[in-house]
Amino acid sequence: MNPTTIGFIGGTGEEGMGLAYRFAKAGHACVIGSRSIEKALGAVAELREKDTALRLTAATNADAAAAGEIVVVTTPYAAQAGTLPLLAAMLAGKVVVSTVVPMTFEGGRASLLAVPEGSAAQQEQALLPGSTVVAAFQNLSAKKLLKGGPIEADVVVCADDADAKRRIMELATAIEGVRGIDGGALANAQMVEAITVLLVSINRNYKTQAGVRIAGIM
Amino acid sequence: MNPTTIGFIGGTGEEGMGLAYRFAKAGHACVIGSRSIEKALGAVAELREKDTALRLTAATNADAAAAGEIVVVTTPYAAQAGTLPLLAAMLAGKVVVSTVVPMTFEGGRASLLAVPEGSAAQQEQALLPGSTVVAAFQNLSAKKLLKGGPIEADVVVCADDADAKRRIMELATAIEGVRGIDGGALANAQMVEAITVLLVSINRNYKTQAGVRIAGIM
Repeated sequence: MNPTTIGFIGGTGEEGMGLAYRFAKAGHACVIGSRSIEKALGAVAELREKDTALRLTAATNADAAAAGEIVVVTTPYAAQAGTLPLLAAMLAGKVVVSTVVPMTFEGGRASLLAVPEGSAAQQEQALLPGSTVVAAFQNLSAKKLLKGGPIEADVVVCADDADAKRRIMELATAIEGVRGIDGGALANAQMVEAITVLLVSINRNYKTQAGVRIAGIM
Repeated sequence: MNPTTIGFIGGTGEEGMGLAYRFAKAGHACVIGSRSIEKALGAVAELREKDTALRLTAATNADAAAAGEIVVVTTPYAAQAGTLPLLAAMLAGKVVVSTVVPMTFEGGRASLLAVPEGSAAQQEQALLPGSTVVAAFQNLSAKKLLKGGPIEADVVVCADDADAKRRIMELATAIEGVRGIDGGALANAQMVEAITVLLVSINRNYKTQAGVRIAGIM
């Protein structure tokens, strides 16, 4: 896919940094947004240590939302409802990617939170009525993204808009080893988000960073 | 694993017949139960056409519950709450396997039903307080089970009892190509059941029978 500018909302966590690293390696310009510009600068400096040629910029969330042609939301689930409404006008007309998983840890065990809208992705769409939300990338190991090298996993992409879905399926292939799989409508994100919680449990049992492959396709 | 007797409750559907076929091929004795003994006899006759040497018996659900050392529930979700309480005494002390997915089809689209207990497997445990419920086999294509040959998929096994879980993980390997993966506690069945609904959508998009592999393990 042609190089584009990708903004990250809440991009200083492992998942945001990992995705920005991979997309920048594939030639895209990534703008890492944060509530704190200092944290964003720190994240960019950390990624530049891996590769000084990466096209990375630090920004506030608002500036990342404004700069991105595609915008990826990588806030924690608990932060999204407070963060996105302020950015809704800026994100109108754009493709916004939900990577968020409604997950809680209690007594060391991950569990899925009930979301009134059905899924974190559907909540995001409700918070951003003028944007086209696509759900993707929830099940990738942040550690493997940051480490570099091929990842044995597929990205299941859910959206109600066919063109936006196709675009993000193509973007997924920027990550070496990964395929973008058409997961159907945005409402199906509920099931994809659930897989992440299961993987967290499997990772603990097997002391690994497991991924999911959809077998029997292509 | 040593040959054992496996009973099926509601075993005349595709999923029950497919699992009975694979377990019988691996040397286990399978008792296919149904509300209707005629339907059970029909299912056994159909499987015998594939292989006359299979150890298969037709029975009522009650007789299948009594005969099985391990008992597999393959009723539709809507039928389980009406079927299992009558069998609870007979199933007490046994390992009971939940394969059930709380799924509905509306306008040709599959969606997940909310289960008050959290998952079909947890509902099964609530209905069978004297049994040890293990959740497994939800994500296998019934068509591929019935067809024979290796299946590219893993079976994620969830249970609160470690010994019962280990046993069903081993039973899963009776199906050629399949691994049994420790999916953690029974409550995690919620996430595994959700995967089936997603696969139904993916199957429709790709006109295939997809399976799920957990990559990065072993």
